[in-house]
Amino acid sequence: MNDSSSDPLIPAIADLHDAAFTAEVLAVLDNKTKPVGSLGRLEALALRIAQVLGQVRPVLAQPQMLVCAGDHGLAARGVSAYPADVTWQMVHNFLAGGAAVGVLARQHGLALTVVDCGVRRDFEAQPGLLVRKIAAGTADASLGSAMTAQQCADAIRNGREIVRGLPGNAVLLGEMGIGNSSSAALILARLADLDLAQCVGPGTGLDAAGLRHKRDLLGQVLARHAQARAPLEVLAAFGGFEIATLVGVVLEAAHQRRVIVVDGFITAAAVLVAHALEPRVAQRCVAAHESAEPGHALLLRQLGLSPLLRLDLRLGEGSGAALAWPLLMSACAIAREMASFDSAGVSRQSAQAGSSP
Amino acid sequence: MNDSSSDPLIPAIADLHDAAFTAEVLAVLDNKTKPVGSLGRLEALALRIAQVLGQVRPVLAQPQMLVCAGDHGLAARGVSAYPADVTWQMVHNFLAGGAAVGVLARQHGLALTVVDCGVRRDFEAQPGLLVRKIAAGTADASLGSAMTAQQCADAIRNGREIVRGLPGNAVLLGEMGIGNSSSAALILARLADLDLAQCVGPGTGLDAAGLRHKRDLLGQVLARHAQARAPLEVLAAFGGFEIATLVGVVLEAAHQRRVIVVDGFITAAAVLVAHALEPRVAQRCVAAHESAEPGHALLLRQLGLSPLLRLDLRLGEGSGAALAWPLLMSACAIAREMASFDSAGVSRQSAQAGSSP
Repeated sequence: MNDSSSDPLIPAIADLHDAAFTAEVLAVLDNKTKPVGSLGRLEALALRIAQVLGQVRPVLAQPQMLVCAGDHGLAARGVSAYPADVTWQMVHNFLAGGAAVGVLARQHGLALTVVDCGVRRDFEAQPGLLVRKIAAGTADASLGSAMTAQQCADAIRNGREIVRGLPGNAVLLGEMGIGNSSSAALILARLADLDLAQCVGPGTGLDAAGLRHKRDLLGQVLARHAQARAPLEVLAAFGGFEIATLVGVVLEAAHQRRVIVVDGFITAAAVLVAHALEPRVAQRCVAAHESAEPGHALLLRQLGLSPLLRLDLRLGEGSGAALAWPLLMSACAIAREMASFDSAGVSRQSAQAGSSP
Repeated sequence: MNDSSSDPLIPAIADLHDAAFTAEVLAVLDNKTKPVGSLGRLEALALRIAQVLGQVRPVLAQPQMLVCAGDHGLAARGVSAYPADVTWQMVHNFLAGGAAVGVLARQHGLALTVVDCGVRRDFEAQPGLLVRKIAAGTADASLGSAMTAQQCADAIRNGREIVRGLPGNAVLLGEMGIGNSSSAALILARLADLDLAQCVGPGTGLDAAGLRHKRDLLGQVLARHAQARAPLEVLAAFGGFEIATLVGVVLEAAHQRRVIVVDGFITAAAVLVAHALEPRVAQRCVAAHESAEPGHALLLRQLGLSPLLRLDLRLGEGSGAALAWPLLMSACAIAREMASFDSAGVSRQSAQAGSSP
């Protein structure tokens, strides 16, 4: 990359693996008044959050929902069920609190910040909006690179700086961008070396003919950028600005050991790019859900993440991350607040006698 | 049943099916600023809650977590990994707020009531405890009926009366009773006419030898009660008092059109008995989760319910119901608070052109 700053674009991300700390957390969980492991995946979640935060009894603080928005030149080629102007309209809806992610963020006390990373139209300055616009939409990836290397680096730096400016120890990833499931599919196909057809789905609502068109077009786009192989080359080739900004968010949040709650297919694609740059980012991630978009499950597998929810969502915005948030809070509450066998005077599991009473 | 009261044991439960009302709810959901159906199972959940409460934009109020506890004579035969005294100990732990269900109920603002339906030892009177004790544990079902028909009817009446005394429009089902996964397995095998081996699992923590012993013993118990076929005969034969009380809770909550949140295998067995008495109870139910206990999935299928969560829980108590609660709240918030396309000025899905932009 053409890196004009003295700071490295990719921050240092430490290995969280620490056998002694892990054993300490497991000892706390196993001594709670319940059969060992009986809270299933909630216990694994508690362990992960404890590891990220370096706290045996973790406390999640001031969670930040970041909805990054951008437009895509490729949207003019008919890859979405919606007109491109919906990106701009929905950002207004986010800011007014009327979108799903706004409703859910209010329910769970998540601070909601919307970032204009590159929406075609501009916004008036207003509370809750950060303008970090690289350009008014990416270029059409079927004709050339969606963004330049410099634009890509700038967006990543924006994402990192946004996280540095926000309090708390958890970031929930959200996005809006008509056409961005195409970028995610192309990123997945190239970085994971998967058959493109597996990676392309209907997004928020294409019908069968629309899906065939999308598959055909994306096949041409993928072939056009056959030389793009390195993670940042792939990101620049396929876009978009909101995904590149999210890559920066993920890198900085991982650097700072914040818990990263991954939402749907598009935010997971941003994590995949960050993971290709530094695999340790996945240690900080929680996969909120597996969506109805078929590429999402493939993508989570690449990241080694198991989704908490399977609700057939296909909305994006961060809605799935918000829906899963109370499970993270529950995992921490279990680790912090449950009584131990000794403190509660509850008998442990007895030796199992088989035939004797 | 020997019904000594003038009230019928089984209340009237109306059919909630109403095509016009359903269409009204779906119109509201479909006009929200999101692609139709893109919130997946959350939309089906919003519809169900709307139908139960008869509110197009439903408001869940004063949710009640009811943890019914009882001991089982069969526990003396070694069907659990835990000594029977753990029932009594865990009730104390519930009341002290140190158990998982207490932690989760606090997190979500659920009023927690513990009911002594038939624990072997007694409790001092204290806030949060209702004593509705039928006897100090059921009889040993391997020797005779776990409870008499009169005890069974009394427990059902207790459950109905408990719901009548509580405010709100939602009930979350919880339970505690060492040995009660045996009762649930026997009830499932008999009422659903399934192979017992499929219905029996390790409960909270049996090892392989313990599981073999449990299967063998329950096979004998099932055979001993070959004549028990009607729902209340099956319930009386296999117990327990906490399950019978929960049957009453379910029947009364269904009668009153409260939302019923089903937890794990044991509470689902209570719903199965109520469902066998009056299938319309299932219209009021939400399955919080599918546990690690293999019979649970079979049981939910009998009830026609799809679980919201799959977290490999095997704790009971109502812990899974509490974990799923925020999803019910989210479903209602979506129906109530999201903007419509018209109100937010967002464009609807465009005609899909396939090859044209």
